[in-house]
Order: sequence, then C-alpha cells, then structure tokens
Amino acid sequence: LIKAWEPTLEHYPLIGIRDEEFATAKKLITKEEVRAVTLAKLRLQDDLVMWDIGAGSGSVSIEASNLMPNGKIFALEKNAQYLSFIRDNLKKFVARNVTLIEAFAPEGLEDLPDPDRVFIGGSGGMLEDIIEAVDRRLKPEGQIVLNAVTLDTLTKAVEFLEDHGYSVEITCVNISRTKGLTEYKMFEAHNPVYIIAATKDD
Amino acid sequence: LIKAWEPTLEHYPLIGIRDEEFATAKKLITKEEVRAVTLAKLRLQDDLVMWDIGAGSGSVSIEASNLMPNGKIFALEKNAQYLSFIRDNLKKFVARNVTLIEAFAPEGLEDLPDPDRVFIGGSGGMLEDIIEAVDRRLKPEGQIVLNAVTLDTLTKAVEFLEDHGYSVEITCVNISRTKGLTEYKMFEAHNPVYIIAATKDD
Amino acid sequence: LIKAWEPTLEHYPLIGIRDEEFATAKKLITKEEVRAVTLAKLRLQDDLVMWDIGAGSGSVSIEASNLMPNGKIFALEKNAQYLSFIRDNLKKFVARNVTLIEAFAPEGLEDLPDPDRVFIGGSGGMLEDIIEAVDRRLKPEGQIVLNAVTLDTLTKAVEFLEDHGYSVEITCVNISRTKGLTEYKMFEAHNPVYIIAATKDD
Amino acid sequence: LIKAWEPTLEHYPLIGIRDEEFATAKKLITKEEVRAVTLAKLRLQDDLVMWDIGAGSGSVSIEASNLMPNGKIFALEKNAQYLSFIRDNLKKFVARNVTLIEAFAPEGLEDLPDPDRVFIGGSGGMLEDIIEAVDRRLKPEGQIVLNAVTLDTLTKAVEFLEDHGYSVEITCVNISRTKGLTEYKMFEAHNPVYIIAATKDD
Repeated sequence: LIKAWEPTLEHYPLIGIRDEEFATAKKLITKEEVRAVTLAKLRLQDDLVMWDIGAGSGSVSIEASNLMPNGKIFALEKNAQYLSFIRDNLKKFVARNVTLIEAFAPEGLEDLPDPDRVFIGGSGGMLEDIIEAVDRRLKPEGQIVLNAVTLDTLTKAVEFLEDHGYSVEITCVNISRTKGLTEYKMFEAHNPVYIIAATKDD
Repeated sequence: LIKAWEPTLEHYPLIGIRDEEFATAKKLITKEEVRAVTLAKLRLQDDLVMWDIGAGSGSVSIEASNLMPNGKIFALEKNAQYLSFIRDNLKKFVARNVTLIEAFAPEGLEDLPDPDRVFIGGSGGMLEDIIEAVDRRLKPEGQIVLNAVTLDTLTKAVEFLEDHGYSVEITCVNISRTKGLTEYKMFEAHNPVYIIAATKDD
Repeated sequence: LIKAWEPTLEHYPLIGIRDEEFATAKKLITKEEVRAVTLAKLRLQDDLVMWDIGAGSGSVSIEASNLMPNGKIFALEKNAQYLSFIRDNLKKFVARNVTLIEAFAPEGLEDLPDPDRVFIGGSGGMLEDIIEAVDRRLKPEGQIVLNAVTLDTLTKAVEFLEDHGYSVEITCVNISRTKGLTEYKMFEAHNPVYIIAATKDD
Repeated sequence: LIKAWEPTLEHYPLIGIRDEEFATAKKLITKEEVRAVTLAKLRLQDDLVMWDIGAGSGSVSIEASNLMPNGKIFALEKNAQYLSFIRDNLKKFVARNVTLIEAFAPEGLEDLPDPDRVFIGGSGGMLEDIIEAVDRRLKPEGQIVLNAVTLDTLTKAVEFLEDHGYSVEITCVNISRTKGLTEYKMFEAHNPVYIIAATKDD
C-alpha cells in the first residue's frame, strides 16, 4: 500500500495569515493588514495572470494564490535569502499556482505571459524600467499596484505611472494594533504604507 | 427553446469591490479598505459557517461569500431600508451562499447552524445580549470580529468579550485616500475604525 | 473724562484657540492641532522676525504673536475675503505685532526685514518663486515651515527646498477627534497634513 | 570682581524643543508633536496655576513654563530616576517658575495652590484617586488634560471624568515623521496618543 505524500496542512486562512507564520526577515514582510488592502486594490478575479515583482517573502503571492485557484502567479525575486524564504513559504502554504522566477526585474519578465495584474513590492532601484516593461505587457483593463514606504518611491512611482498614461489613486494606510495578551492594550503603530493603484486611461 | 435567466455579471473582483458599486446609504457601508482588513481578521477558510450580525448593506457578507464558495453565510438585518439594499446587492453580485435573515439580533440566531465566524457590524443597542448569544453557539477555535467607530462601543465590546473569556486584539485602521482623477491628489481621511478580533481562551 | 478704547478681551489661550473662534471660511483654517504642531516646528523664540506667506485667516500669525510678544510678524495675503477675515481676527485677538501686507507673494517680500522664520501656508501656484525669494533673505540658522495637503505640493516643496540646499524633515499629522457633547464619542478624522520643516545645510 | 552665575543658555525655542534635548529615558517623554497638541489642549494663559501630575522628564512643564512666564507650575513626580531627569532639564532650560514636588499623587497635592490647569501624564495606578483629588481643587472654568496610550487608561479616564461631571473631548494623534538626513525619507510612525481634554459642566 502506497500512501501519497500529503501536506500536514493546518488550516490557514485564505487571507489574514499572521505575519509570524511566514519565513521572513524583520521589516521585509508586507504586514497582514496592509497585505489585505493591497489584495483588495489588486481587484483580483479567479483566473487572472499576476506578476509579483520584488516578491520578498512571497506573502502577497501566497494570499493572491488563495484567492485565484485558477489564476497564474509569477513571483520575481533575486535576493538569495528572500528566495529561500519564498520557497519555504510556498511549500508551507501549498501555493500550487505560484511560479518562482529567479530574476532581477525588469529582467525575467519577457518570457512570462501578459499580466492582468502587477504588484510591485520592491524595485531595486529599477522602478522606471520596471514600469516601462510592465506597461508594454499589461493587458487591457489591467491594474498595477505598488506599495511605497518612502516619499521618494511614492513621488517617482506616481510620476512614472502618470507619464505612461495611468491614473493613480493613492491610499495611505496607518495601522495601530494592541497586542492580544497584554493586560493594558497599548496601541502600537506600524509605519504608514502608501498603496498606489494605477489603471490605464482609455 | 427556453433560455434560463443569467445574470449579466460584470466581472467584479473577489474583494476590493468599490463602495459605490453597492446599493447603500451614505455612512452605512464598511469602506473597501476596512472591509479588506475585516475579512483578513475573520481568518476565513473555504467551508465555514459565518454569521453577519447587523449586515447593513451586506458588503462584508458578499465579499466573504466570494472567499468561501463552499461556506454558508447568514446575514441578519432588521432595518427595512437596509434589507432592500442587501437584496439588491446579493442579486447584483450573485452571492448564492448568503442567506438573508430578517431579524433583530439576538433574535433569529437560535435557528441558525453553529458559527465558525461571527462578524458584528451593528448591534442596535443589544451588544451584550448578542455577545452572550454568540458565545453560547460559537464553535471551538471560532472567531468573533466586531467593528467599532465610537469609544463607547469599543469599550463595551472589549469588556463584554473579556468577561466571557475571550482574548481580544484591537486594530485601529486610519485610511486617507486621494481621488483618482483630481489634478492635485489631496489626501482625504476616512474616520478611523477599531476592528476587534476575539478568540476564546482555552 | 476720556476713557481709552479697550478691547473687551475675553481671555483666549496663547495657543489652542478653537477653530470656531476665528473668522474664516470652511476648509481654509489650519486646524488647532495642526497649528500647534506647526508652531512647534517653527521653533519660535521671543524676538524673531517671521513671515507668514498665504496667511489665510491669520490663525498661525495670531498664535505666533502670542508666543513672541517682542517679535515682528508679517502676514502676506492677497485674497480679498481672506484679508477681511485676518483684519477681524487681528482685532479680536489683539495681535499688536502682526503687520498685514496685501500682496501676492513673492511680491511684497522685498520691503520686509529679513526673516528668522518663514511659514508658507499657501503659495498660489508660485511655490518655486517664493522659495527662491525666501532663500535669498532667510537669516542664518533660519527655519522654513510649509504645510502641504496634496501630494503635488509635498513633492514640489521638498524638491525645491533640497535644490536650494535645505535639509527637510516631514511630519505627517493624522488627527481624529470626538465631539465634546455627543453621547457616543465617535472619532471623526481630519485630513492629514504634511508639515515640512527645512533648515539650510552649512 | 564678582561675576554672577549665568546659564550658557543656547537659544531654545519656546515650544517644539527637540525630544533629544531632554534628559530622559526612552519611551518616557511625550514626543514633541504630541507635547505641542497637549499644550494647545491645556489652553494656557500667561498667569495660571498648573499641576503636572506624573511629570516624567518634565518636558510638558518646561514648555508650559515658557508659555506662562507669570504662571506657577507644580511638577509632581516620585520616581527617583525621573526626578533626576527633571532636575537636569529644569536647570538646562532655565525654567524658573516650575516647582518640583517629590510625591506620589494624590499625595502632595494638598499643599499646592488651587489649579487652573491640570495635566496628568502618568497616574501610577491611582487614576481615580487623582481625578477625585483634582476635582475637589480645580478652579471654575478649569481644564484637565490627560494623555493615554492604552485602551484601559483611555476607558477609565473618560469614565471617571464623566462620573465627576466633566465633558470630555478626545483627540487621537497619529504622527509619522521622516528622518532629516536620510536619503529616502521613510515615514516612521509614532504610537498614537489619546489626549483627553475635560471641562466641568455648569
């Protein structure tokens, strides 16, 4: 009798997986609340193609994959340590439709199918080139979402996107949270994240 | 030849449906960013039973239904105008697994199957009774999420939940957003929402 | 017997004058909390020269005048309605050391004494010219503070100030406030304001 | 020839003294932006009597003293380390009208003159007793301001103040700030502070 390998899959939620469940480096991960708003802004549907550029620990790809069981997600990352995190996380959360691409964007994008959705979590100093490359390939009615934590990225991303004919909506997310088990419930702030959602003007 | 009725379903996203797509009254709806964080805090899985108490315009139930195609969602509402909104929205977004219950909670809860997840969006002054009723029925490892916009609700909800043996985590969500098509991108703030996530201590 | 005119001066606070005490148009006034932080960032001392460019309803000049009884404050404004507000407010709050200049900056700045502090509350589309004019006149160890509510002003102000050799610190202020007499204490958010504080590098 | 001792007083601002200028322990100090809003909510006038209960490092007393050269400020503190901070800071900033009282409130309040203004920065678990003691002594049209960083303090302070006949306004201050000299201007959040301003109903 042969028993197939089966992941001992604890029942994780579709979205709202706790940050500490991911293999990650401190400050790398998109925090769970910001991840949820990011996924909402990506306006995902079940069967889309999504690129996740600068995938970090892969948390956005993994929850996107839970939302799109018939979708195809391509996660690009070049940093060796992050790649190791992503591999561990893809396995842990059984994200079957995420393809990991070892590449430093915009390299590595040419061979992928055209995207309906693009999430840019990190750009490694290549933001303008990445936006150009994405713009050449994004399908009609596609969406680009980019998260910025510095004024410089916020300013440049908006400028580049508008230069390429996109309308942008910027959502600033400020979260503070109490810790579950402390007696006094002190609110601790997370750094604000600017979520830029861009759609091509007709 | 008889052709079955088929919704002319525009392709709405699974989560992140724009607020203006819902039939609703001003200030009633849980705004799209807060809805996304609320759904994340509910930690939904595909096949759960969820109660949505004080469902308002039904936006949380509808997106929860998109996340749980095999789940069962029961939306309780008593206000006649809101019921009309929910009916329109359930139809528009083809939310097949949401059952609308016309009742003023805690009434109407007795006949429902035990919940894995409970969202309390409105309590109509019956907060303590509702939490008691929910507590008697919530399944092991269940989760309660409650959104508060006033200090009074925040204070009372935390007190009642802790009195019934729950640990609470409070997430304060402050969102500001630019309007997509304006030239100057002015950040407009939404009122903060306190999302209380409660789990029963062992 | 001649009795000198004496203002029936209710005892207003030095800072923290309530917004509704000022003659103003809706959305014009720097709200009381943001005004307090703005004054802190101006790092006022008792005997300084301050320019208030685009003075609006004059609230910043008036509280600055309370802090600097031996200072000299020059409030520039050109909008006829705002000028009327400022005159009413200067009289009401007995701000003796505020000089009102009817001019559209950078016009009107030439004849003023060199400033130790400059607050730019409004720039009427002349931001770069104003920053250039201010830069030629600002005294050593001077400070410029500028309040921005749009991404465009934030981006340009930082760019122009850095181009002229300034270091900038940006403080984003998000305020939500309950109304004093309501029963339920609902938190209402004010739009965020970005306070840019600039000092010249040596 | 006798030369009087003279402080080598660098010219510090009246309000907006940088946090790092104070002798203090990490996390003890009321941050400069919150301090400015706190002082605004205290609605100070030149010649008032103010109690600063749980004075910490004394930063609120010191800036209040700059605003009220003819006022009398009494700073209560019992923690030995904090007392040492306050003494250093009072000397450094030449705050001549601040009297330091070594006492654990409500002890130590009996011998002080009746206050026009009371700031409660820390209560050492004696919040209800302190509010009772303050209420017996506060002058007509007096103001109490209390800063809370936990839900528990916020809830209890509002409850005790309302029980004693006060109306409260709560201001939640969320600040994020870039560091002056970094290249990328990343916004770093400070934990939110709830500033409760209470006035006695007639």
